[in-house]
Amino acid sequence: MSREELLHPDRLFPAEPGLRATARELYEGVCDLPIVSPHGHTDPAWFAQDMPFADAASLLVIPDHYLLRMLRSVGVDYDVLGVPRAGRAAPDPRDVWRVFARHYHLFDGTPSSLWVDHAMQVVLGCEERLCAGNADALYDHINDRLASPEFRPRALLKRFGVETIATTEGALDPLVHHRKLLADGWIGTVRTTYRPDDVTDPEVPEFAANLDRLGEITDTDTAQWDGMIEAHRRRRAEFRRFGATATDHGAASALTADLSPAEKQELLDGARAGTLTPAQCELFRGQMLTEMAGLSVEDGMVMQIHAGSRRNTDRAMFAARGPNMGADIPVRMDWVGGLDALLNRHGDATGLRVILFTLDETAYTRELAPMAGYWPCLMLGPPWWFHDSSNGIRRYLDGVVETAGFANLAGFNDDTRALLSIPARHDVWRREVCGFLARLIAEHRIARATARQLAQDLSADMARKAYRL
Amino acid sequence: MSREELLHPDRLFPAEPGLRATARELYEGVCDLPIVSPHGHTDPAWFAQDMPFADAASLLVIPDHYLLRMLRSVGVDYDVLGVPRAGRAAPDPRDVWRVFARHYHLFDGTPSSLWVDHAMQVVLGCEERLCAGNADALYDHINDRLASPEFRPRALLKRFGVETIATTEGALDPLVHHRKLLADGWIGTVRTTYRPDDVTDPEVPEFAANLDRLGEITDTDTAQWDGMIEAHRRRRAEFRRFGATATDHGAASALTADLSPAEKQELLDGARAGTLTPAQCELFRGQMLTEMAGLSVEDGMVMQIHAGSRRNTDRAMFAARGPNMGADIPVRMDWVGGLDALLNRHGDATGLRVILFTLDETAYTRELAPMAGYWPCLMLGPPWWFHDSSNGIRRYLDGVVETAGFANLAGFNDDTRALLSIPARHDVWRREVCGFLARLIAEHRIARATARQLAQDLSADMARKAYRL
Amino acid sequence: MSREELLHPDRLFPAEPGLRATARELYEGVCDLPIVSPHGHTDPAWFAQDMPFADAASLLVIPDHYLLRMLRSVGVDYDVLGVPRAGRAAPDPRDVWRVFARHYHLFDGTPSSLWVDHAMQVVLGCEERLCAGNADALYDHINDRLASPEFRPRALLKRFGVETIATTEGALDPLVHHRKLLADGWIGTVRTTYRPDDVTDPEVPEFAANLDRLGEITDTDTAQWDGMIEAHRRRRAEFRRFGATATDHGAASALTADLSPAEKQELLDGARAGTLTPAQCELFRGQMLTEMAGLSVEDGMVMQIHAGSRRNTDRAMFAARGPNMGADIPVRMDWVGGLDALLNRHGDATGLRVILFTLDETAYTRELAPMAGYWPCLMLGPPWWFHDSSNGIRRYLDGVVETAGFANLAGFNDDTRALLSIPARHDVWRREVCGFLARLIAEHRIARATARQLAQDLSADMARKAYRL
Repeated sequence: MSREELLHPDRLFPAEPGLRATARELYEGVCDLPIVSPHGHTDPAWFAQDMPFADAASLLVIPDHYLLRMLRSVGVDYDVLGVPRAGRAAPDPRDVWRVFARHYHLFDGTPSSLWVDHAMQVVLGCEERLCAGNADALYDHINDRLASPEFRPRALLKRFGVETIATTEGALDPLVHHRKLLADGWIGTVRTTYRPDDVTDPEVPEFAANLDRLGEITDTDTAQWDGMIEAHRRRRAEFRRFGATATDHGAASALTADLSPAEKQELLDGARAGTLTPAQCELFRGQMLTEMAGLSVEDGMVMQIHAGSRRNTDRAMFAARGPNMGADIPVRMDWVGGLDALLNRHGDATGLRVILFTLDETAYTRELAPMAGYWPCLMLGPPWWFHDSSNGIRRYLDGVVETAGFANLAGFNDDTRALLSIPARHDVWRREVCGFLARLIAEHRIARATARQLAQDLSADMARKAYRL
Repeated sequence: MSREELLHPDRLFPAEPGLRATARELYEGVCDLPIVSPHGHTDPAWFAQDMPFADAASLLVIPDHYLLRMLRSVGVDYDVLGVPRAGRAAPDPRDVWRVFARHYHLFDGTPSSLWVDHAMQVVLGCEERLCAGNADALYDHINDRLASPEFRPRALLKRFGVETIATTEGALDPLVHHRKLLADGWIGTVRTTYRPDDVTDPEVPEFAANLDRLGEITDTDTAQWDGMIEAHRRRRAEFRRFGATATDHGAASALTADLSPAEKQELLDGARAGTLTPAQCELFRGQMLTEMAGLSVEDGMVMQIHAGSRRNTDRAMFAARGPNMGADIPVRMDWVGGLDALLNRHGDATGLRVILFTLDETAYTRELAPMAGYWPCLMLGPPWWFHDSSNGIRRYLDGVVETAGFANLAGFNDDTRALLSIPARHDVWRREVCGFLARLIAEHRIARATARQLAQDLSADMARKAYRL
Repeated sequence: MSREELLHPDRLFPAEPGLRATARELYEGVCDLPIVSPHGHTDPAWFAQDMPFADAASLLVIPDHYLLRMLRSVGVDYDVLGVPRAGRAAPDPRDVWRVFARHYHLFDGTPSSLWVDHAMQVVLGCEERLCAGNADALYDHINDRLASPEFRPRALLKRFGVETIATTEGALDPLVHHRKLLADGWIGTVRTTYRPDDVTDPEVPEFAANLDRLGEITDTDTAQWDGMIEAHRRRRAEFRRFGATATDHGAASALTADLSPAEKQELLDGARAGTLTPAQCELFRGQMLTEMAGLSVEDGMVMQIHAGSRRNTDRAMFAARGPNMGADIPVRMDWVGGLDALLNRHGDATGLRVILFTLDETAYTRELAPMAGYWPCLMLGPPWWFHDSSNGIRRYLDGVVETAGFANLAGFNDDTRALLSIPARHDVWRREVCGFLARLIAEHRIARATARQLAQDLSADMARKAYRL
């Protein structure tokens, strides 16, 4: 395949020539805008320490669960791919790379292909698409690049045009890397996000110890409900010192609760004692979402809810290798019933902002767009995870805009731990946005000047505004 | 924006030139057909009294919950918009209009924009798109128009080419406006619809008193199940005097029931006493749907079921301002299980017709089209509420036609209380139908002559037939 | 309508000229590939006995529940259509044909129209589209053809280019027709499939007697759980003698279970005694799915799960005429929760293959593609039943490819009992695949050479591989 075919300048634009020309014109106005990345999972150690990346496989393959899971689905063992497991020596990264190269055709037609091709060509200067035949040559080429100063993490952020990127840390995280970043004047470019699942979910391992630890580091009594809330208040303030403007909350369902003080204390006692039923654990998590909304009303932090993934559905895998191994699968959602308590408690509070992310696309037109088009606090996050793809973005825009309007969208965020895929992901979003707007222009549903402005807003400014950056 | 851009003659047609030419040709055959509007919520007082409308804001903004909710979602208070609240003086309508104009860009890309642009240009003769800068000028222009005789309600119906329009009244409604319309020879052009939720839903306020009142006006004993059914029978006959050919039933779920006489009486006793649990209330409503189907078998009235909206999800809003404030949100539906009792009781009865409307689009291909393609009594209503939009219509036609066929569709109805949007809504439907049919022609799935006929049928005749007009 | 319009060579291809040219080019590479039909419901007696078909109505109309149900939905009685009912004489097939012809316009825009037009033109050499006016002429023409040797079943298989076709038989089926086929050297071209619902579902009539019969023919004690499993093991081996490479399992839900030996025996005892509750019946079926997966691990047979149809929703119809009368309606599915037990028991077993078919399209992106993209054993079957249509195939490919990749798809199968529709169904799939791939090429998401290969794979080879043919 020629270099041009590897990454065609018109890729993802609509096939119809008139639409394509319009999409291209819109895209030219946004392709060079800064990258605003207000939610993601890159490793803050990269930016704090600014050390070179080890090798192509360790950077591009082993941490990318999109790649790993697909290889596994056709029978490639995780051991062969270097996925850590207690008592197993890691394979040679070059061997991992070769396996990946041999199977790279599996990703044809998937977003991974767009992301990896883009990273390899645009970021790493590869001139051929990866295959079994060039695996070694490209491995050496990439490793050479990674050893040079312009491939250190901070240099990459600059080269990518990253205006700001948020990492995500647990409530107990000591934020050592962010301290270094603060000292170096890099907070603002990099910022943290408060993700307290380790102390809001009674079903995480060591929950009671986590709560105790939270009490110690905040000098509060986390055995008492009010003390526990105060502990969060203090941690949130501490996170804001390191650039945080947002919190993030993972939830299997979107259930929220609004209980009495006595009920809350009783739940907390049970959670600490480990005596809650699964339904009570769900209720605890739901009450904590409402509490977090209350704290957001106080301190203005933007609340993100990522709901709808059933985690660790492969229990043997979880036992052998832990979480995030590709076996998290979306399930059906009830956003209307789930958020009822939170919204009726805080939904009209001045300044509250809650950004919702779904893995159940049926909720776009049925629940989320209607809700976002009513509640002042609600905005819709971009397509998430499996749906952060060309078709996923198309379904999202087709479904939400008519009911929620553009103004209730939170722009884009890449939500990735794969650093080199970040430019590609924003590029895919921008191309799809331009394709979508081109169609609205062609169908005379919006004016061309409006579309130009919306393309800009959706590419960067809506994310800035939504996350109060 | 130029006038042409405000409302382009090719708006909503497919972008591909060949498809567009075909769509335009089909559209030319249907754009001037009469408007058949067999279901909606316009105010019969307008047509009975035929008085001028007050002003642009009171006509176009304040009653339109699509507009209000979007403004609210970005923080505009309903008080500012003139939404009634006990103890608040209404703002100057001109100020409401200015707020609307300032925020009109919020509707870019939404159906409201298509409807309002159409009403302002085609109906009201405005030559510019509304914005902050021309708000006052357009307000004055519109108010001038509204004061002239050709903008009285009856004149508008004529100008719009409305062949027939149905309003919707509760079982206890005295139908005073329809009496006036009958006296004036306007029944037929305007007709009522029997919507008895006030006496079929034990959870409405004053339910027992409503039932008593129903007994009084029909001279029946509504404390007895059979008497209550007789009361409905009589009210339905009375409604038919005023042109009604249909009934309408709102339901959060589509649950129906088929209980024994003793169980029914027990439910009724509980409903009157106010002692039913929520589940029993649901059962009561479900039994009433089955009863209404039974009465339709008797009297031939077409039964409409609009299901799937969770009403008043913002309880503070409901307490302050009542229902229909934009906080009704769709929820997931189970049409198969829900309609089981009704269909197994009456589904094959000769002459029964039940038209189904969903807010859960997932039901199109999974449940509704398969059901409509089997049961003689079932037809599918057009996309409803949030889904009465360009994309919503596309999803609907793409999803239902292959399984239900065209013959099981009920054509279009606008279901609106926004009088001036009616031509626009029918126009959007007709344009989308023509775009859909143009694609079927281009893909050689139907013949051009067939498509021409279908475009006509879908634009007017299917609605006539479905509603037995 | 001219002959060309009846079946245009470019039918179903995208309207945009560039896409159409690419689709056509891809299609030319696959249109003549053999038909691989690894799952379906044709009658093995046809191929064993190789007798002429009786007449056009008996072949094309009366066994096709797609046609029957649509006719019924507009009020045509099944008696008029010759659908068997106890105590009713069958109508003259010519009259059935006339009724069908008179209503043939009902199928405009539906897949039935594509299938019937194709069968009539390509297979039966009709030169006009069916209508009331030519009904008799075409009936006579078709009957003439059916009487000639080249319209015998085996000749048709050859003419259609059927490389292999699977029928589907119950666990108790004596396989007499397959014995004949084996003797004649036709096993391989025709093969059976093991579908044991009659002995795995406690709610089928005569369940206990069926189990007894299973014990007799396998010389096992089916009153004991292990004996019952052994009986299945033996029947599966017997089916493999007649070409079976797969099993098939129908289920309303996808619930699976993984119970203890004692619990299993207790369920079996209850099932035999007829004392299980509906929930226990569901559990029994769910346990049997897990057992069947276990046997597939042993013997390598490919397991198919067709889930999500609520059967016989019209109880009066079922009582009068039995099952498969068009009243089976899809319901919402929970694949993630449902398959949890099976997957955690056998999901990583070497060689296990489970192909999933859904009638709830919302599961494509939310559950099935993510699951297939993780579990080595899972593959996604093609769109099924109501969704085996142009738009259904488009929604399927748009939804699943990005997350599951092409490699986790099982290609196409026609799943039909309508023999003459088989070429048309494969043709529709191939055309849609080529249209889908043409768009990926045009959007520079895959290379043209890759698309050429994928078109071939999706047309035949993936089905071969998925079913281990």
